[in-house]
Amino acid sequence: MDYKFLGKDITYDALKAMTPQEREELCSELRDKILNTVSKNGGHLASNLGAVELTVALLSVFDYKQDKIIFDVGHQSYSYKLLTGRYDRFDTLRQKDGISGFPRVSESPYDVFDTGHSSTSISAAMGIARARDLEGKKNYVVAVIGDGALTGGLAYEAINDLGHSKTKMLIILNDNEMSIDKNVGGLSKYLSKLRISSGYLSAKRTTESFLQKLGFFGRGLIKIILAIKDFFRFLLYRKKPSMFEDLGLVYYGPVDGHKTDDLIKAFDAVKDIRGPVLIHVLTKKGKGYGPAESNPSDYHGVGPFDLETGVTAGKNSYTTVFANTITEMAVKNNKIVAISAAMTLGTGLDNFQMKFPSRFFDCGIAEEHSVTMAGGLAISGFIPVVAIYSSFLQRAYDEMITDCCFMNNHVVFAIDRTGFVGNDGHTHHGLLDISYLNSMVNMTVLSPRDYSDLKMCLKYAVENVDGPVAVRYPRGTSPFEAEGPLYEDVSDCVKPHIVEDYGNDFVIVSTGRISEEADIAVNKLKEQGIFGKHIYVSMIKPVPAKEIMELIDGISSVFSLEEGILSGGFGEALERELQILGFESDVTVFGVKDPLVRAMSQKEQIRFCGLDGESVAASIKAKL
Amino acid sequence: MDYKFLGKDITYDALKAMTPQEREELCSELRDKILNTVSKNGGHLASNLGAVELTVALLSVFDYKQDKIIFDVGHQSYSYKLLTGRYDRFDTLRQKDGISGFPRVSESPYDVFDTGHSSTSISAAMGIARARDLEGKKNYVVAVIGDGALTGGLAYEAINDLGHSKTKMLIILNDNEMSIDKNVGGLSKYLSKLRISSGYLSAKRTTESFLQKLGFFGRGLIKIILAIKDFFRFLLYRKKPSMFEDLGLVYYGPVDGHKTDDLIKAFDAVKDIRGPVLIHVLTKKGKGYGPAESNPSDYHGVGPFDLETGVTAGKNSYTTVFANTITEMAVKNNKIVAISAAMTLGTGLDNFQMKFPSRFFDCGIAEEHSVTMAGGLAISGFIPVVAIYSSFLQRAYDEMITDCCFMNNHVVFAIDRTGFVGNDGHTHHGLLDISYLNSMVNMTVLSPRDYSDLKMCLKYAVENVDGPVAVRYPRGTSPFEAEGPLYEDVSDCVKPHIVEDYGNDFVIVSTGRISEEADIAVNKLKEQGIFGKHIYVSMIKPVPAKEIMELIDGISSVFSLEEGILSGGFGEALERELQILGFESDVTVFGVKDPLVRAMSQKEQIRFCGLDGESVAASIKAKL
Repeated sequence: MDYKFLGKDITYDALKAMTPQEREELCSELRDKILNTVSKNGGHLASNLGAVELTVALLSVFDYKQDKIIFDVGHQSYSYKLLTGRYDRFDTLRQKDGISGFPRVSESPYDVFDTGHSSTSISAAMGIARARDLEGKKNYVVAVIGDGALTGGLAYEAINDLGHSKTKMLIILNDNEMSIDKNVGGLSKYLSKLRISSGYLSAKRTTESFLQKLGFFGRGLIKIILAIKDFFRFLLYRKKPSMFEDLGLVYYGPVDGHKTDDLIKAFDAVKDIRGPVLIHVLTKKGKGYGPAESNPSDYHGVGPFDLETGVTAGKNSYTTVFANTITEMAVKNNKIVAISAAMTLGTGLDNFQMKFPSRFFDCGIAEEHSVTMAGGLAISGFIPVVAIYSSFLQRAYDEMITDCCFMNNHVVFAIDRTGFVGNDGHTHHGLLDISYLNSMVNMTVLSPRDYSDLKMCLKYAVENVDGPVAVRYPRGTSPFEAEGPLYEDVSDCVKPHIVEDYGNDFVIVSTGRISEEADIAVNKLKEQGIFGKHIYVSMIKPVPAKEIMELIDGISSVFSLEEGILSGGFGEALERELQILGFESDVTVFGVKDPLVRAMSQKEQIRFCGLDGESVAASIKAKL
Repeated sequence: MDYKFLGKDITYDALKAMTPQEREELCSELRDKILNTVSKNGGHLASNLGAVELTVALLSVFDYKQDKIIFDVGHQSYSYKLLTGRYDRFDTLRQKDGISGFPRVSESPYDVFDTGHSSTSISAAMGIARARDLEGKKNYVVAVIGDGALTGGLAYEAINDLGHSKTKMLIILNDNEMSIDKNVGGLSKYLSKLRISSGYLSAKRTTESFLQKLGFFGRGLIKIILAIKDFFRFLLYRKKPSMFEDLGLVYYGPVDGHKTDDLIKAFDAVKDIRGPVLIHVLTKKGKGYGPAESNPSDYHGVGPFDLETGVTAGKNSYTTVFANTITEMAVKNNKIVAISAAMTLGTGLDNFQMKFPSRFFDCGIAEEHSVTMAGGLAISGFIPVVAIYSSFLQRAYDEMITDCCFMNNHVVFAIDRTGFVGNDGHTHHGLLDISYLNSMVNMTVLSPRDYSDLKMCLKYAVENVDGPVAVRYPRGTSPFEAEGPLYEDVSDCVKPHIVEDYGNDFVIVSTGRISEEADIAVNKLKEQGIFGKHIYVSMIKPVPAKEIMELIDGISSVFSLEEGILSGGFGEALERELQILGFESDVTVFGVKDPLVRAMSQKEQIRFCGLDGESVAASIKAKL
């Protein structure tokens, strides 16, 4: 497709002056570019296809060089990137040294706040709007947030503050059409037209200023008049006054999110209202690409795929092994219940949900609630398995401690996406979980290497542990499947395992999938005449320090390897525990020093941090 | 006061059978007991005085031996404790080996879930209610939550899930009368009576079951009829349908929270409704004790005080020094803004708020929003100072990382209540902050010893640091004020300071107020002929390892002392950084192994963990 608009400098004035036809063409070009790039590079497809018209409308009303637009999560910002100076670099999306799949202040002055985790946009926008007000500036501030992200408590905390402080800003609620009942869609549209017409607005403003001038009694009367007006709306459109209005926001909508001109009319109508406004916009995930429209969940985040045939089902992965194991165990043990925070498919729990609908709870994008609720289930004798990605579980740090660990509640945390995640970049890495889990009292931590090990660890966590326990595993597939299992008996998951044993020149103690690199290092050094050992541990809290010490007795060069931040990590725990036992040598810890590792493949990220086999071998050699 | 009821076994049946008079007497006894105990032991006064009738009513309708009542935060649970078997031990409230000021499952089978941090009760209750449903049991589950706690996002996440899942449980919204406009109170009361009358209830149930039997069109008609009913309510009482109903809960109220019989009538009327119900109860903080009614904030959490004269103003503390310093700096630097999460008084920011109302933001019990909002202010060029207690800041762990650290936003975290907090016990200790701060990229951490050091560190944090920076300080007063300042120049806050220097037998490197114990240890050992050094560091991230190494050159016995968890703490960071520089000796770390340290004085807690001067001296001697 030859582009008429994309690739040229598309200014705010140019966008504003476009005809409806031209905007439609521009939207087609954006869709084409997004589809072609994502099918090559992978990325977030459905959400970006859904936000094309919304973005064009936003940039036709707001000047991105002055105004501040914050995209919640940021997985709908591709059109924004294409229209704010990143068309030329768009082919590098999510690649090494390329542009990020999320807004990044380091990438462009028009990305005003980094996002990646859900529900932050309203808070960030409020801070930016308050700063504007303190400086007496007049620019607009807009937060674009999905209906899913609005289930996160952080978004509610912000709305609560916003409704009270009356800071002037605009929230665009980007609501997927699917979750709106189609039968009421027509009436809602009519209502929306009625409310956003400038006639309605100015009438409302006049009434309000009139209200200011009345005394207490008069005000009461006017409120009754307004109530009657609301009532007629209610009666005609079967629509209650919105809860956003209860919280102090002005609510407009819903507006069709794929009618650029309707959107522009709506934004224009409300942009100068003093105080916070929420516009409810209806969009369709995957809009414009048939397979994604039909199965938006499958096209949320994708790897490269063929545009003709679409995305094909994934093969075995740590995620599927976790999901299958838990579902199997749940057949025999009816105390097992599973909890997801709006990630049923991502965590593989869809099958569990189908098999045990009453024992499955999707709590929304609500990691905190998921964890505290699990505490309540556990204290009542159930065994909740909470499956959340490592970096998203950070949201529930406090709840893990106070609602699970302090009471020693037997909650099983199935922590997916530990370590590097590849192309999503630094907001999504699971580099902190070992550190935060290690600091939590009563917490047991298991860090399996391969599928068999993962199964064993899950069984151990469910059947042999009394208190809170985490089983952590990475994104993707196991590189160990050719080797066969490390051990056969569940209870052996707590023991250290010697996986390579060439001599006593040194030892590496490793945990997690990255142990693959330790294998490589030990073999590389063997080729160079340096003969060491590689010990693997799945159980990292408590560290089986005594057993490790027996295995490394007499070895003075000890190294550890993990895919996580140094501070509070596995290596430091190992060093501390060995020191307590009187072991004399230091442990040299290989881990991640700086977690700000941008998008590239997982393997490249490991190499970037000097944790690949070759680098580890070189470091060990230098140390010896 | 001689008690007629308290001290005897007050069963559910006995409470149920009481006359209104008897219940009134019981409430007087509870108030008397609470006042007398708290004035001796300290504790949460205003909230407990406000919840006396509420608790008596709850226990007259629900059987605490079967049903589950969860108190949010738990600072209103004294009456519950007195009525569920802890009258005899109540004199030990918040004392060593005594009963806790908060619900503790380890203390009584009738404390069903530990609380202490805000906004957890609805989630915990949902978990407990879901477990009940899975087991086919029939007991009631009740969450008691304040209007403040309801501003926390976690509570909203739970309500969102609850309204959708329709789990049967009762939420008591304990709303302080003060925040309700008295002009509408009378009408509200009338409304409340109308709604909780059993006539109204059964009418509503009948309508709903009728509704089930109609087809689509009929249902639409009925909805209009119900809308008209709602409208008349609205018109008559100027009351919109509650946002709780929008979210799927049945709402009743408000009910006068000091009329035990009204409360009983309300609870009885709704207890068998299938699905989630919220009863809005109006109470007065401090009810029954004049000084606390007039100044509930002053009587929220108190130390021992004289019942006749009331609480007297506190003396200088780390908190007041922080607050005065920031307020002074804000006079000269108009980029400084301050943020509190519903703790304006507790963090000392009331004066800042008075002086700079437009530069002060109280975000509600919303640590997450406070931190992300601060990120927005910082990226816009302001210097937000976020003052939150160490253990409550745990709620914003993820937001500190993604919304402040990743973008290197210059947000100043003023972390109060670090280390042991004394009688509030383990939910309130600030033992994790060093560990979690150490794992955060770009974060600078300062841990001052005394008032002068605190002032210097705050100045350094505001003026000399570019990115996120934490200044952490403990509850209470400085024991160093007789000594004079450690150093005179702000920039020296980053350097290690030799505070005792008797020889090179050993060295302790300490940080924070607990360095007092290191002083004691070094002097104790000197008396025994062991001559060591004590080095103090305020700057703990990055650790000034090079400067420390120069000072300890030639000393092979190195110890560290901190008031925090071992994993990821100061000692481990020191050991790592010294190791990287090639320092040969290990660091033996003194810190907290097990954070589950119950209520006692801060000094006793330090001793309990073996971190007092005497214990440290003994450990050092043994090691040498």
